Amino acid sequence: MSVTAAAGFLAAGVACGLKTTGKRDLAIVQNRGPLKNVASVFTSNRCKANPVLWSQQVMADGIADAIVLNSGGANCYTGARGFQTTHATAEAVAERLDISAGDVLVCSTGLIGEQLDLDKLKTGVWDAGLAILTGGATSEQAGLDAAHAIMTTDSVPKLSVRTVAATAAATASAATNVAYTIGGMAKGAGMLAPGLATMLVVITTDAMLSSEQLDVALRQATRVTFDRLDSDGCMSTNDTVTLMASGASGHEPGIEDFTLELTALCKDLALQLQADAEGSSHDIAITVTGAISEDEAVDVARTVARSNLFKAAMFGNDPNWGRVLAAVGTTQATFDPYNVDVAFNGVKLCIAGEPGESRTLVDLSPRAVDVVIDIKAGPASATIWTNDLTHDYVHENSAYAS
Amino acid sequence: MSVTAAAGFLAAGVACGLKTTGKRDLAIVQNRGPLKNVASVFTSNRCKANPVLWSQQVMADGIADAIVLNSGGANCYTGARGFQTTHATAEAVAERLDISAGDVLVCSTGLIGEQLDLDKLKTGVWDAGLAILTGGATSEQAGLDAAHAIMTTDSVPKLSVRTVAATAAATASAATNVAYTIGGMAKGAGMLAPGLATMLVVITTDAMLSSEQLDVALRQATRVTFDRLDSDGCMSTNDTVTLMASGASGHEPGIEDFTLELTALCKDLALQLQADAEGSSHDIAITVTGAISEDEAVDVARTVARSNLFKAAMFGNDPNWGRVLAAVGTTQATFDPYNVDVAFNGVKLCIAGEPGESRTLVDLSPRAVDVVIDIKAGPASATIWTNDLTHDYVHENSAYAS
Repeated sequence: MSVTAAAGFLAAGVACGLKTTGKRDLAIVQNRGPLKNVASVFTSNRCKANPVLWSQQVMADGIADAIVLNSGGANCYTGARGFQTTHATAEAVAERLDISAGDVLVCSTGLIGEQLDLDKLKTGVWDAGLAILTGGATSEQAGLDAAHAIMTTDSVPKLSVRTVAATAAATASAATNVAYTIGGMAKGAGMLAPGLATMLVVITTDAMLSSEQLDVALRQATRVTFDRLDSDGCMSTNDTVTLMASGASGHEPGIEDFTLELTALCKDLALQLQADAEGSSHDIAITVTGAISEDEAVDVARTVARSNLFKAAMFGNDPNWGRVLAAVGTTQATFDPYNVDVAFNGVKLCIAGEPGESRTLVDLSPRAVDVVIDIKAGPASATIWTNDLTHDYVHENSAYAS
Repeated sequence: MSVTAAAGFLAAGVACGLKTTGKRDLAIVQNRGPLKNVASVFTSNRCKANPVLWSQQVMADGIADAIVLNSGGANCYTGARGFQTTHATAEAVAERLDISAGDVLVCSTGLIGEQLDLDKLKTGVWDAGLAILTGGATSEQAGLDAAHAIMTTDSVPKLSVRTVAATAAATASAATNVAYTIGGMAKGAGMLAPGLATMLVVITTDAMLSSEQLDVALRQATRVTFDRLDSDGCMSTNDTVTLMASGASGHEPGIEDFTLELTALCKDLALQLQADAEGSSHDIAITVTGAISEDEAVDVARTVARSNLFKAAMFGNDPNWGRVLAAVGTTQATFDPYNVDVAFNGVKLCIAGEPGESRTLVDLSPRAVDVVIDIKAGPASATIWTNDLTHDYVHENSAYAS
């Protein structure tokens, strides 16, 4: 169901020729309200694509009617003409759906440094608009079509839905037991890194929440989910995660409860991105415990996640804890470098800085790998999700210009 | 010639069974003086191997008689027993050559987290000592044997020599026109990164210089040579660069002149390391111009050098300047992200943040690639040398436990 699961949302995904394969490459998600509240987080890369620059302006007032997304081109480093293309795309959506261009968010993904074909974009907007205006756009299939249209090297669409039951304290809008729904779609397979991945994510909810509440919840949720995904250390120019609320359920959840549900949905989508990372053969969770702060735990875990030697060893099913420590030692976190434990899949290979249990006890053939590094300096911990460095990663990223 | 080119130095390289291949794996370089001055720089990794911890103590007084180096094991994360092994190795050298263990530097390279076999080390020290004591140890072959003994995944030994001519102002010690000589050997093929590479380097000179002068010259030289080599972003636990001066030429060079010669020799060795980096198919020089400081230029160039997406594109001969800008945008350097030029091998693909000359003009099939990034903020520039990310890199570092 994804973005069409929550009441008040319509979606469509069509093919307009931006992808040379002829597959779907343009999606629109419209919020029919009654609320049109929105919050977004964007890439922290200073080189931001034109659609990011545009969307930052659109969402500044906390209101958006629709979002249009295309694959087949990032529209980044395309100058003034590229910005005009983004603007014209929003205008086309506004005209088609009889809304204001200033309330239309735009997302693009694909190759940097090439102009998008505006005629194709307009054709796509026309066709997607037709689908939205003529019915069927609230269906599961409509949500799936939209998710397909934002895929690049993704092998599968990423969808997630959570229906939250009404509690005694809650005021459900319907006769059912469902108080409100959150649904989302995501794309991203390479360039997955800090401050979000190469990632476009649209999340919809029919809960009644202000744009300020959405912003607080979204920042809390992404901080511990998408921001903890670091597949290849490379940060995109186009990352956008947008959360839209229609209020159509009539239910006003507590902000803590909503944040918990949203976080669970974001984690589900983030792990789907990890599982589909380009060329990967392992999903690796690197957990640092015993840090003096969560920030330092994240720093140490991320540094290990970015060690090519560690990542190549994982591809080779080699529990090479020396490479873990060599990476840990490059950080400025507080710990004694000669009193660290390292465990692979529960086997403590390094205990207090010396060889511990035998490497032969570790089986790294399954896709999931857990690395736990105890730096014994404090109470904080954090997990970074990453992937291994494989022949297929090199192949996909050398043969495919993206 | 390498380390035996300068007068006053003896060397030997032997096989003692640390390498399973039976190849040479232990080297000794002895300084017969009259000066025994030394300076060293070590890895900035906080996780330092036992031989690094030992050698830091040895060279604290600026005096060393000899250095012993082994491949086949890093002696890192091997605890108190590992430190005792390093100590015992220095003692064995001292006994064999009738010097003090406190004047014997030790270097090791190989797998982290496994104990070295002390009996094999002692056998190697005995045999290498025999070669030094019984003649031939000043020969070109002796220097070559030592260079072979420190190789791990290196495919060729790295050697360099500079003979500096006597000028009118200089007082040459001999009837020849040579005032003094500098020679060096290096190993390193993977884990090549900041604050030195996985690198062991021994440089000898017969110039008359104090240990303080050696230290100043060595730090200046390594700052712009080995520290600018960043093959795979991974920093070793064992890096050591040692410069020993015998004074046997009787020539006392000016410190600026000596530093220039030493820098040239270090650059030659660094580029040999780059050319032999594991699995690489391109030697890439990333030059950032227009920075407000050299530090910022280095930061931007290093960040690009560590982008796996950029490195994979280079392997694919794809002049993907978008990936360069995506990396540049993650830095905090001073520049306008929408006014940057990027050139590949002289072709300006990006001009002022927009597409410039055609990608088809760029030929990336040769091994050497020049990337120039002009960030147009100031007068400073710097170059980082790196390699591409290849199938062979992944293969060597997944199949080979190092």
